[in-house]
Amino acid sequence: MKRTIKLTVCYDGSNYSGFQRQAKEKTIQQELEEKLARVCGEPVTVTGSGRTDAGVHARCQVVSFSTEGTIPTANMPRALNSILPEDIRVLRAEEARPGFNARKDARRKEYEYRIRFTPEPDPFTCNYVWQMKEKPDMNKMNEAAELLLGRHDFSGFQSTGSTQVSPVKTIYRSCWETEADGTLVYHIAGNGFVYHMVRNLVWSMVQIGLGKKPPQAMAEELTQKRGEFENSPAPAQGLYLARVEYELYKD
Amino acid sequence: MKRTIKLTVCYDGSNYSGFQRQAKEKTIQQELEEKLARVCGEPVTVTGSGRTDAGVHARCQVVSFSTEGTIPTANMPRALNSILPEDIRVLRAEEARPGFNARKDARRKEYEYRIRFTPEPDPFTCNYVWQMKEKPDMNKMNEAAELLLGRHDFSGFQSTGSTQVSPVKTIYRSCWETEADGTLVYHIAGNGFVYHMVRNLVWSMVQIGLGKKPPQAMAEELTQKRGEFENSPAPAQGLYLARVEYELYKD
Repeated sequence: MKRTIKLTVCYDGSNYSGFQRQAKEKTIQQELEEKLARVCGEPVTVTGSGRTDAGVHARCQVVSFSTEGTIPTANMPRALNSILPEDIRVLRAEEARPGFNARKDARRKEYEYRIRFTPEPDPFTCNYVWQMKEKPDMNKMNEAAELLLGRHDFSGFQSTGSTQVSPVKTIYRSCWETEADGTLVYHIAGNGFVYHMVRNLVWSMVQIGLGKKPPQAMAEELTQKRGEFENSPAPAQGLYLARVEYELYKD
Repeated sequence: MKRTIKLTVCYDGSNYSGFQRQAKEKTIQQELEEKLARVCGEPVTVTGSGRTDAGVHARCQVVSFSTEGTIPTANMPRALNSILPEDIRVLRAEEARPGFNARKDARRKEYEYRIRFTPEPDPFTCNYVWQMKEKPDMNKMNEAAELLLGRHDFSGFQSTGSTQVSPVKTIYRSCWETEADGTLVYHIAGNGFVYHMVRNLVWSMVQIGLGKKPPQAMAEELTQKRGEFENSPAPAQGLYLARVEYELYKD
């Protein structure tokens, strides 16, 4: 009998060329599909809630797939973790309603972006945070972050190469926090994100925090939708897909 | 004028096939020599204090080389760090006496080995610690660690493939400590180490800590020098070359 499975996975993206399967590069999707084929006894194609770029991490990525394999759902995490590389872990496996699609059915996604101040770059954290020598002003960054809340056209924060249909997205959470060890963490949740949106936003907020442009510049871009805001993506290694939420029941 | 330089470097070994240059694999030595050639304006060959295996890290590895290049010694760290990958950092550059050799002149080397207890493996630390589900007895491990102090024949803790001349080494420090976050750290310093010695010792001490063999088994191997102690190396990713010391002046 065909089952549809919702798998929650966690990965360190440092050694992968992103989530999506590619011809020659090692990717998260390829690793998952190879190991799922062994566990399910048949070829498996997974759909992720979204792609993560090379070097981007995931605390809770969600992928869906369907299989006629007989392994009990509850046994999947242990079976997969015993053969997956240690930098990819399966946290949960749940049976979902037929037709469940991790990408199309996602209703809210949350990311975090981590920045650390280091007078000397630290080789042991360079894959996990954006290392900076100068400390931006957290008040200014939070002032800019608050402007993002609500429904906006994010054309100005979209990198070229995007295949996104609508640049209008609703942001539910947007704030900077400081952790005990001094790491700055940006939290953003929304109903969707255009290509490179979080990294472009972080870069712009850091420029604002460093006094290179006023928070007002960001407000203007969001209200006037010029689609020409000058920005460039913050480094991939600071970005973590933190959570994906779904409407689990539908009529 | 030809100068001999002593360079202190720090690296995350996760993405490298060890220190030593190899034909096709990416290594620390190759990265250093490529970047030094650019900075010095001529081909450069470096000698490390010792090889580190694939996945092994270094907080302070020392390498020596000689060059006729004109760049001031004091400018080398900044020049190299601007072109080296972020997971290799040059901490210091000093002019050494002519003929200084980072391998032959090393008098004391110190390593640390890190173990963390995690009910679920954590993909973000799997490259930096040995992850374990069961907690070994620290008292037993320290009892075994103390037996290593002094001069011993370490044939039983040498992996095959070694090119080491004498298996007799003197150990100056050998103890386990617990860090604030619960990580167990083994510190060992000696005048030299046979192939895989630290990793073989850690594996054996962990077996003792888990009650699988008595501390006495290790004592017997050290005193009777049978060279047939059953062991296997603990995983590379927990090992860090922590410090290398030299006699800086010689007659």
